[in-house]
Amino acid sequence: MVNRSEIDAAAARIAEHIQRTPVMQVRGFGLPYSVEMKLEQTQHTGSFKVRGAFNTLLSQPVPAAGLVAASGGNHGAAVAYAAQTLGHRAAIFVPEMAGPAKLALIERAGADLHVVQGEYANAFQAALEYEAETGAAQIHAYDAPATVAGQGTCMREWEEQGLQADTVLIAVGGGGLIAGALAWLRGARKVVAVEPETSSALHSALVAGAPVDVEVSGIAANALGARRIGTICFDLARAFEAQSVLVCDAAIADAQRALWQERRQLVEPAGATALAALMSGAYRPAPGEKVAVLVCGGNIAPDPLA
Amino acid sequence: MVNRSEIDAAAARIAEHIQRTPVMQVRGFGLPYSVEMKLEQTQHTGSFKVRGAFNTLLSQPVPAAGLVAASGGNHGAAVAYAAQTLGHRAAIFVPEMAGPAKLALIERAGADLHVVQGEYANAFQAALEYEAETGAAQIHAYDAPATVAGQGTCMREWEEQGLQADTVLIAVGGGGLIAGALAWLRGARKVVAVEPETSSALHSALVAGAPVDVEVSGIAANALGARRIGTICFDLARAFEAQSVLVCDAAIADAQRALWQERRQLVEPAGATALAALMSGAYRPAPGEKVAVLVCGGNIAPDPLA
Repeated sequence: MVNRSEIDAAAARIAEHIQRTPVMQVRGFGLPYSVEMKLEQTQHTGSFKVRGAFNTLLSQPVPAAGLVAASGGNHGAAVAYAAQTLGHRAAIFVPEMAGPAKLALIERAGADLHVVQGEYANAFQAALEYEAETGAAQIHAYDAPATVAGQGTCMREWEEQGLQADTVLIAVGGGGLIAGALAWLRGARKVVAVEPETSSALHSALVAGAPVDVEVSGIAANALGARRIGTICFDLARAFEAQSVLVCDAAIADAQRALWQERRQLVEPAGATALAALMSGAYRPAPGEKVAVLVCGGNIAPDPLA
Repeated sequence: MVNRSEIDAAAARIAEHIQRTPVMQVRGFGLPYSVEMKLEQTQHTGSFKVRGAFNTLLSQPVPAAGLVAASGGNHGAAVAYAAQTLGHRAAIFVPEMAGPAKLALIERAGADLHVVQGEYANAFQAALEYEAETGAAQIHAYDAPATVAGQGTCMREWEEQGLQADTVLIAVGGGGLIAGALAWLRGARKVVAVEPETSSALHSALVAGAPVDVEVSGIAANALGARRIGTICFDLARAFEAQSVLVCDAAIADAQRALWQERRQLVEPAGATALAALMSGAYRPAPGEKVAVLVCGGNIAPDPLA
């Protein structure tokens, strides 16, 4: 299990390469209480994913064949950016649903981009084949200790910035971000895992008692559409009793609209999913319970300035 | 001249009604140094203008006829929002160039919206006539002490948040925001006034030795297109030796694109104008000089989620 000292080490390793992302306390969104927010979509490449990517690249030797990653888009952009920064080659496999904004991000970082028919799991299969053929190092999007330790630096940083919340809501896809948060917090604050009803890998695993395959679809699928929750996340979610809630696509779209209309933060659906749990009532804090929402990704398509 | 104790009083008066806006330290934008930023476009109604609006409404009696304001859009939205919050009627006069996003904001706040042919100065004339006819209280967009004291709370707040910069760059239209900053700082930090080449009311006034009328046009005109700089701003800019620089529309568009691509902050052209001075080299800091950019407005049109 990833521990706090590994996250401390990751934070030191990646410090010069990442953006320390801003935090704010917000009253609004039609809620009768205020919400702490961390704007992690202001991170390089528009999501938290570079934390895990840099930590992985900086903690292992990289072969001459370079790196390979499969991704719904955000992890691929992060690996491409980290590889470019550190002078490595990168091959990125993404499903078509990644969408034009994320494809452009990956290409802008100079990576070798492969678009695969199907969903994330199909891209992952193609990346495994590429790894076997070339000897490139596989950078897993969420279920690897170095990835999770890197993502854990986000919660570590938030606590350094004075996080006050009793409860933190985090969107879950494959579970890398929430796994890092759970490993850092170790039960010191409550963690609520928010998934779309149509991409509920963690929820389904908790119900089944073990990771199981799920169908994925919906407006956040290119970021949260993992077919099976990572085992690192699953184990941490059980060990530290993360609460699992589900939200529908309409609630995600409402939260996305509110973030823009009220706070001028334009985020992708995944970035609004945690807030959707509060706005929709899928998670209702107890009286006096202080809550925080991690805004995790901003790679909306189409590009609003294109 | 507006003084620090008036800004302290304004801060106390408006505290419960405004958003404390986030700050961040950014390395990027193709610059060889880092930049402190304050994301004031995350303020209610998407710009700093609510600070002055709330301070004005809370420091004077409001007649039964309510309020009237002329605005390129952002001030009107702010007055409409403050009036709605405090239970007053508001009539807002805007030029056509305000654009659909700002008109929608004003209507959403329940104000009585009047669209006027021409530019800001024409809208202001219509607002003066309305004031004379109805007895409504005129809330000036920038050249009134209560407005300037309210805008000064933005720099006060930034210092509370640990601002380190030697030099702060601020976009200038009529000069309310920079006047508040100058009145708060009183020379303790250097202030750089950034205007579009095509809307340079302060620059022209400093050259002429007194406020003069200028032509206004360009991509930031609906926020920065004041025909004449406010006298409060002009006096403060001379007293505390603000440095005036100009940027072209292409530089503003580049900065706007960089804010989105690098930090996922989608802002209107005026909100990117101060950064444009750094990216274009219109302002070049000395070696070791620490700089900060105030991001002041995010009411881009068209609405990216419409």
